[in-house]
Amino acid sequence: MALAAVDINCDMGEGFGQWRLAEADDTALMELISSANIATGFHAGDPSLMDATVRLAAQHGVGIGAHPGYRDLQGFGRRRIEGAAEEIVNDIVYQTGALREFARRHGASLQHVKPHGALYMELAANEDLSRSFVHAMQATAPNAFIYCMDVSLTHRVAVEAGQPVIREFYADRDYGRSGSIVFTRHTGRLDPAAIADKVVRACREQRVRTVEGDDIDIAFDSICFHSDTPGSLAIARAMRAALVAEGIKIMPASELANPSKAITRG
Amino acid sequence: MALAAVDINCDMGEGFGQWRLAEADDTALMELISSANIATGFHAGDPSLMDATVRLAAQHGVGIGAHPGYRDLQGFGRRRIEGAAEEIVNDIVYQTGALREFARRHGASLQHVKPHGALYMELAANEDLSRSFVHAMQATAPNAFIYCMDVSLTHRVAVEAGQPVIREFYADRDYGRSGSIVFTRHTGRLDPAAIADKVVRACREQRVRTVEGDDIDIAFDSICFHSDTPGSLAIARAMRAALVAEGIKIMPASELANPSKAITRG
Amino acid sequence: MALAAVDINCDMGEGFGQWRLAEADDTALMELISSANIATGFHAGDPSLMDATVRLAAQHGVGIGAHPGYRDLQGFGRRRIEGAAEEIVNDIVYQTGALREFARRHGASLQHVKPHGALYMELAANEDLSRSFVHAMQATAPNAFIYCMDVSLTHRVAVEAGQPVIREFYADRDYGRSGSIVFTRHTGRLDPAAIADKVVRACREQRVRTVEGDDIDIAFDSICFHSDTPGSLAIARAMRAALVAEGIKIMPASELANPSKAITRG
Amino acid sequence: MALAAVDINCDMGEGFGQWRLAEADDTALMELISSANIATGFHAGDPSLMDATVRLAAQHGVGIGAHPGYRDLQGFGRRRIEGAAEEIVNDIVYQTGALREFARRHGASLQHVKPHGALYMELAANEDLSRSFVHAMQATAPNAFIYCMDVSLTHRVAVEAGQPVIREFYADRDYGRSGSIVFTRHTGRLDPAAIADKVVRACREQRVRTVEGDDIDIAFDSICFHSDTPGSLAIARAMRAALVAEGIKIMPASELANPSKAITRG
Repeated sequence: MALAAVDINCDMGEGFGQWRLAEADDTALMELISSANIATGFHAGDPSLMDATVRLAAQHGVGIGAHPGYRDLQGFGRRRIEGAAEEIVNDIVYQTGALREFARRHGASLQHVKPHGALYMELAANEDLSRSFVHAMQATAPNAFIYCMDVSLTHRVAVEAGQPVIREFYADRDYGRSGSIVFTRHTGRLDPAAIADKVVRACREQRVRTVEGDDIDIAFDSICFHSDTPGSLAIARAMRAALVAEGIKIMPASELANPSKAITRG
Repeated sequence: MALAAVDINCDMGEGFGQWRLAEADDTALMELISSANIATGFHAGDPSLMDATVRLAAQHGVGIGAHPGYRDLQGFGRRRIEGAAEEIVNDIVYQTGALREFARRHGASLQHVKPHGALYMELAANEDLSRSFVHAMQATAPNAFIYCMDVSLTHRVAVEAGQPVIREFYADRDYGRSGSIVFTRHTGRLDPAAIADKVVRACREQRVRTVEGDDIDIAFDSICFHSDTPGSLAIARAMRAALVAEGIKIMPASELANPSKAITRG
Repeated sequence: MALAAVDINCDMGEGFGQWRLAEADDTALMELISSANIATGFHAGDPSLMDATVRLAAQHGVGIGAHPGYRDLQGFGRRRIEGAAEEIVNDIVYQTGALREFARRHGASLQHVKPHGALYMELAANEDLSRSFVHAMQATAPNAFIYCMDVSLTHRVAVEAGQPVIREFYADRDYGRSGSIVFTRHTGRLDPAAIADKVVRACREQRVRTVEGDDIDIAFDSICFHSDTPGSLAIARAMRAALVAEGIKIMPASELANPSKAITRG
Repeated sequence: MALAAVDINCDMGEGFGQWRLAEADDTALMELISSANIATGFHAGDPSLMDATVRLAAQHGVGIGAHPGYRDLQGFGRRRIEGAAEEIVNDIVYQTGALREFARRHGASLQHVKPHGALYMELAANEDLSRSFVHAMQATAPNAFIYCMDVSLTHRVAVEAGQPVIREFYADRDYGRSGSIVFTRHTGRLDPAAIADKVVRACREQRVRTVEGDDIDIAFDSICFHSDTPGSLAIARAMRAALVAEGIKIMPASELANPSKAITRG
């Protein structure tokens, strides 16, 4: 029942110009993850930071993903913008292309696309938007994975269309009974050991405790945590050590033998 | 001595959101040109407009070029920003990738990169910046043409590095004795017939009259005009008709048999 | 029952940098209106355009109003952004102060604040946001009018707090049965004579026909139309001529003897 | 010869949205300074941060100043933008008004305007721009102090026009022989004790050592340091303690009895 291998993904390069996130130590984190979601300029991430982050990821053999968000530096992409689906998807295409150009520069390729923050949540719940997004991906990046939640409409639409998908488990977010994470703009300090336990359990049993106190099934290929979660570095180290101790291999989506079947059940 | 074939390039998609340039009629102009420099979001051009403009260009068999500018919507990229070379070039890489993604979506490829406005003029005069730019192009787009002036440092640096180059003749700008155009933020209304004559003469004799009143030699592969020049559509029609009457073929850079030798001398 | 006097307000200065709205002719419109809602930079309006528009309004004795919007140049402020009330209100305070500084420069004062587009509609329906907005206004501009719809929560909250209010009638928008306008991102071409009739009837009878075909009561102190409505100049001329022919005086909010009782009933 | 009283000013509120400067601890610094230059949104500073920073300054009786910069979040206002003087000054007017509105909200008034970074340096060297700036200030804020260097053209132009001026001494920047600071985008870690000594000497003798190794005369009313200078809090504490030990009073510009004659000579 346990996962034999799993991806660990993390948001990276979420500064802008002179600013960096206080908690995020991208250089240290890059040693601990297998896939990086790199901010693409609309909610965070300027071109020079993208260049540096892509280079760093390429040097570490970390899978490179575009992390497009709403055009909202002020709100860090955590505020929903009610735009037409086509407009929003064009913003995603734009940002994805920008990131991919830096990958090309550093001899790497685009492994995945993972929308950010409120855009990710909106896609999960909005079938039309998911359909437009997946449609664009099939034209521009048919081999790139879409990162999403198992229970999301994004996931369903992408699978139906034949677009490769990676399902995520959120180490540093709470789950509701629906199997979706409870979205928040701010997260308090979390206990690395408790998170490591939660992650290992999820890998072993595909089960997670919800905020309501129930246990629910959870299907995933990749573990996500956020570089701006307070204590993110300690969390990443604890998770990684616990997974290794458990004999679970950590590898980017592109190396998971067969991501859609990566979960060895029983 | 006359050119057998020439490219006509024009800036396209220079609106933003709700705004379009009053003079520019991209749909009509697309019939008359062979290469389009498509604004990439920093001085003009939002993702939805880029998508529509790339699609239009692809439908017309017009060569697709990225037209990156300084990050300056307020100044339309016509104000120089004193940034570090590496920063500026990363902005170019970002914008180029964004544009290329829309080309990919519409089954086309990136033909060229032409920096916009003050960035174009700064590159022409700044060897370090040209070197950084060409260096980035060689890593990301070694087969894409750089559009520039024959007398620019950009041209010299690109040729030395082996990057394909298209030299431009500016139909709607005045020339100085140095062979460089006289940069301006605003242009008055011009006479289409006079411009057609100037262009035909340039193609036949590779000569142009300067603002000082002299004639100088001018070497080029492509004729440029601006969609926001008052009367741009009439100018484009007059030029095209005059070139056709002269027996000069109009084709995108990618189809010019051998651009660097496209000028048939003697 | 007829209004003896009415204000006519219009959005002004809705360009940015090099861009202007194709339909808007602010110079000609300024002759026809009594109050101007001047874009304050977030959805449209750059500082130089604000300066020019404020000067023009001051020269014409037109009441000067701040027209703050969501931070969304791309969407022209017509897309809702789900921000915290306090954040949104701080954005309004910021923009209002910016506009007021140009008024001060030109010897004028701030007559009113009218939020733009999706922000106006959100305020109308969101009591918490309206409360935060009115609270801020009472601290910063207790004598400035808030422009809003009679049926809006903004109106109710402002009246309760004692903030001066101007209720609007929308000449170029359709009404629903609720007495609220039907919000749209784009408007087709309208018939100036039909609009003039609708406006005169509203002034005489305080009645308007809804999209459902009913007549409803409508209470207002000011008539609003949009400079980017196709044919806005012809509309403004037709309205103004019809009002003058009807003997209804046109004056800015600050000159309406007693705006909250400006409607002479019976 | 020693100064009896001096102002200490510092840049404040230089975050944006989710981002803060790693080094800056505005809450702690506000206890140590007498005037705050508050970022106004173009190079840093969003409306909510401006609101919070103005409130904090008002609570501490710290003089409130607008700190307008070039429209350049990416470059933190440290890159010169070659705009027309009038355009740049309109940007300053806009930002100043925005800041002043928050001061009004918190029952405070605008004490001063201090342009930021590359704009400050450009003004110092550009007489036309200084003239446009001072001209605008005289219309909009004739009683607000302009913070500038004694040797700058801004200072000369403002004094000629009768605009109140505060001359600055830069604690954490190096001086050149011209009496101007040596502009830099990045500063290394400095020794608080050495800075305190430099400041006390400047107050006592109006002398400073240049990068060339000479001593030059320096005339000033206010000591400036930067919140993003590494170790800024320790620097501020060391300076303040040294000044107090020296019997020099620290007070905002508005309380300096007669700022233009605040230097008691001999």
